[in-house]
Amino acid sequence: MSQQKQKSLESNPNARWRLQGHHRSAISCFFGEFVATALFVFVACMGCVESPAFPNSHFRSGLTFGLAILIAIQCFGSVSGAHLNPAITLAAFLYGVIGWIKAIAYFVAQAAGALIGYGLLVAVLPQSSIKGVDDPAGACVTVLASDISEVQGVFIEFLITCCLVMVACSVWDPRNVKLQDSVAVRFGLAVSCLILTAGLFTGASMNPTRSLGPAVWNNSWEHHWIYWVGPLVAGAVTSLIYRMAFKGEEEVDLGNSNAKIRMIGEVVIQ
Amino acid sequence: MSQQKQKSLESNPNARWRLQGHHRSAISCFFGEFVATALFVFVACMGCVESPAFPNSHFRSGLTFGLAILIAIQCFGSVSGAHLNPAITLAAFLYGVIGWIKAIAYFVAQAAGALIGYGLLVAVLPQSSIKGVDDPAGACVTVLASDISEVQGVFIEFLITCCLVMVACSVWDPRNVKLQDSVAVRFGLAVSCLILTAGLFTGASMNPTRSLGPAVWNNSWEHHWIYWVGPLVAGAVTSLIYRMAFKGEEEVDLGNSNAKIRMIGEVVIQ
Amino acid sequence: MSQQKQKSLESNPNARWRLQGHHRSAISCFFGEFVATALFVFVACMGCVESPAFPNSHFRSGLTFGLAILIAIQCFGSVSGAHLNPAITLAAFLYGVIGWIKAIAYFVAQAAGALIGYGLLVAVLPQSSIKGVDDPAGACVTVLASDISEVQGVFIEFLITCCLVMVACSVWDPRNVKLQDSVAVRFGLAVSCLILTAGLFTGASMNPTRSLGPAVWNNSWEHHWIYWVGPLVAGAVTSLIYRMAFKGEEEVDLGNSNAKIRMIGEVVIQ
Amino acid sequence: MSQQKQKSLESNPNARWRLQGHHRSAISCFFGEFVATALFVFVACMGCVESPAFPNSHFRSGLTFGLAILIAIQCFGSVSGAHLNPAITLAAFLYGVIGWIKAIAYFVAQAAGALIGYGLLVAVLPQSSIKGVDDPAGACVTVLASDISEVQGVFIEFLITCCLVMVACSVWDPRNVKLQDSVAVRFGLAVSCLILTAGLFTGASMNPTRSLGPAVWNNSWEHHWIYWVGPLVAGAVTSLIYRMAFKGEEEVDLGNSNAKIRMIGEVVIQ
Repeated sequence: MSQQKQKSLESNPNARWRLQGHHRSAISCFFGEFVATALFVFVACMGCVESPAFPNSHFRSGLTFGLAILIAIQCFGSVSGAHLNPAITLAAFLYGVIGWIKAIAYFVAQAAGALIGYGLLVAVLPQSSIKGVDDPAGACVTVLASDISEVQGVFIEFLITCCLVMVACSVWDPRNVKLQDSVAVRFGLAVSCLILTAGLFTGASMNPTRSLGPAVWNNSWEHHWIYWVGPLVAGAVTSLIYRMAFKGEEEVDLGNSNAKIRMIGEVVIQ
Repeated sequence: MSQQKQKSLESNPNARWRLQGHHRSAISCFFGEFVATALFVFVACMGCVESPAFPNSHFRSGLTFGLAILIAIQCFGSVSGAHLNPAITLAAFLYGVIGWIKAIAYFVAQAAGALIGYGLLVAVLPQSSIKGVDDPAGACVTVLASDISEVQGVFIEFLITCCLVMVACSVWDPRNVKLQDSVAVRFGLAVSCLILTAGLFTGASMNPTRSLGPAVWNNSWEHHWIYWVGPLVAGAVTSLIYRMAFKGEEEVDLGNSNAKIRMIGEVVIQ
Repeated sequence: MSQQKQKSLESNPNARWRLQGHHRSAISCFFGEFVATALFVFVACMGCVESPAFPNSHFRSGLTFGLAILIAIQCFGSVSGAHLNPAITLAAFLYGVIGWIKAIAYFVAQAAGALIGYGLLVAVLPQSSIKGVDDPAGACVTVLASDISEVQGVFIEFLITCCLVMVACSVWDPRNVKLQDSVAVRFGLAVSCLILTAGLFTGASMNPTRSLGPAVWNNSWEHHWIYWVGPLVAGAVTSLIYRMAFKGEEEVDLGNSNAKIRMIGEVVIQ
Repeated sequence: MSQQKQKSLESNPNARWRLQGHHRSAISCFFGEFVATALFVFVACMGCVESPAFPNSHFRSGLTFGLAILIAIQCFGSVSGAHLNPAITLAAFLYGVIGWIKAIAYFVAQAAGALIGYGLLVAVLPQSSIKGVDDPAGACVTVLASDISEVQGVFIEFLITCCLVMVACSVWDPRNVKLQDSVAVRFGLAVSCLILTAGLFTGASMNPTRSLGPAVWNNSWEHHWIYWVGPLVAGAVTSLIYRMAFKGEEEVDLGNSNAKIRMIGEVVIQ
């Protein structure tokens, strides 16, 4: 076996250029989460731009927003897990997927990524597309509809983030660990659904840092607390309930294919 | 092997907080089906809201409805099977997937879930969005178009529910047991298709409890019997036909990967 | 091993009610192809209905049409292969997937299914929705746009059916034999794409029997030959080119998982 | 084992008609990339046609464009890798997926494919659909919106191509090598997303040859350099960054299923 490993490294001469082991992995996770959030906020918010020169519709921007999640999960799912969202990171911490140091690092990466992502948008688009007559608060800023009270708003954000975090918990469930192939599609379309459903009422943020980026650059802070309280409480509550009520038993190691291979290997070696 | 199990339990110290074995599983199934239906009815019906303040279209609400099914199956498929629908539960019973006690429990969970799910919607939205000039029967209440007679309506509901139940039967078919990865996407888009197809004629309910929730809260019972008779008859007929005419042979246990692992294990142990 | 088989049969007491072996399989294939085509034509053509009472758009009907293919492949892919289309069946015959007896039987099943499927539509909808001012030829009848000549039309049908048959050939390719999970989604969205692309020019039939059903019931035969010549020639040409130029080598039996299981079984038995 | 190979070849009598081994594979790759690009440009650009006789919308053409990528990857992913795009090919070369000879051959195939694909479109559609009042530059020609400066335009093309190439790099990542089933769906929807996001600003080309085809046939070269510089620089930069910062370790051969099978085989043979 060690010979095969040798061969594998030789066939990959660039391996020496890369940081090895634990350190590379930690930096790669942090940087991955940062780039993932920046990419997601840039693409998703560009898809929300609406101005007289660039007509748009809520249907188009809602669908695009979910597909931007698809891109970010596809690109960074195997790098950092592609949380993109402090509510998901909080849920992951309470679910036992990540530790508290990583959770804090991810939150920093997400906040920085959202600021950079929206900053890139401001850099490449004409100012009139970002903040104009059609978009007084600024493109992609989450606002409450005039018919929705603050209590209703925070409740809606809470409920739709519960759905979102439930999706994440089911992806982390040991029973579903082999069903990874279309995770990006399922997660992306789930987000599209929730935005098409609730977008007209609260903007369907479900994500504090996704609301933070546009709020900072446009200095639009009306009702902003809703997009922190609703999603974060939902992340904590849903994760704990799912873990207690629904999470499958951990499969014995034999159940995953790596273990299988190791055992077969032993047969051969014996 | 027992050592590995030991290790797996130790790495999961919360295991002691959870109900063990059969009882946890039964409660988890019932509660899962309840939450799944509530989540589905809340999200899907919110996506149907249409009022002067919140414009909508049949295309958008039909697509969203199917994606709400995607979310519910993704979250609860591995918990309760995510039937969400008495017609599917009846089909599952006749197909041999579940027993009659579980079938009745699921029906209760679905009815309760639909009532709670729509109730949450009533709680978080302004009353004018639920029942208004554009929606005299109430948001998400299934009604017949004026050009469609009751006989045509029940026949349409019967036929599209046949399609839906056929999808479920094919998912349960032993030949497809390994093709689980994108089930949520396939089922969700199938429902979207059937709603886009038949929604303007009958509302494309295909699901008695999904029709029940909005009907109770809005006290709108016109043609309501159609949404019980059409889907339930379709569930029974399709399940029996599929089982007799199309269902694949049960694969010998060797065919599934767990069996494989067990056998390999035996080799090692021997 | 025989004991396990025994157990599997006992746990499935209905096995005796079903036809055994080869005969059941042949009847099941034929009947499956018939029901699959009827289901597809019923759902897809209902999604094309457009009348003053039931507004529609080319975008919505094109997307729905592809998703109807998704449903049919999901339900009957493991029963009959869900060709639904003589052009696909011809391609399958020339590719070596099926023999000529089965090919002819499938063609009969498809023609009968299309007639029954559209007949169900005529039965459940008001006559004004099928043939009206907006749809002089009849709902779902494939017609040429007035700007497109017959030669252009047959060429467009030929080219888009080439794309469709190429998708089918790639699904049959030995290299892709393990990638079955999302076939229904990929095929459905591919058909949606081709209809959104070419639907306004020729109706984007790509399927003689799908054009036959509406043509018979509405007695609309203008340019009907195009929808036989274009798709069938495309099916033949594409299948032969793909087989010669692109088809992967047959993998040795060892390559598929059943063989693996059989071998492991031998280890145990030895 | 040799007997099984024998049997497999006998059951495939046409094997003799095909070129054997290395040469067939190289020609198949080149021809595959050519046909894939022609198919993609033909379908995607036909979906962009907009004229008074054939109404269209940016939403519909953007979604269709991505689904045309889905078709091309589904059909040719296992033949040539279905790059379809010199920026992807450049990224693949720098990532170490292909060598420089193949990279140059792919570029030639892509340029030729784009010219033939758009040529087919010109052949089958009335001239008024290709270049008219609504489309002064020509159907599917990528142009900058009047509000976007050249610097902004090249920056937008750079950034969205970075996203696209990141998706490709994640597909090539050794950690994701088993997640092939829904690659075509994920890639197609990712492209749809990027076009819906940036299409109104720059046309969202992300692909020099896709811009070349329509430009040649319509002789429209305004801002054309942007669609070479932006995507190609993005392809190079993203590939190198992903390789250095994010790419997973090569798995030891044991990790893939073929190796597993070979080892089990040894057990049996021993």
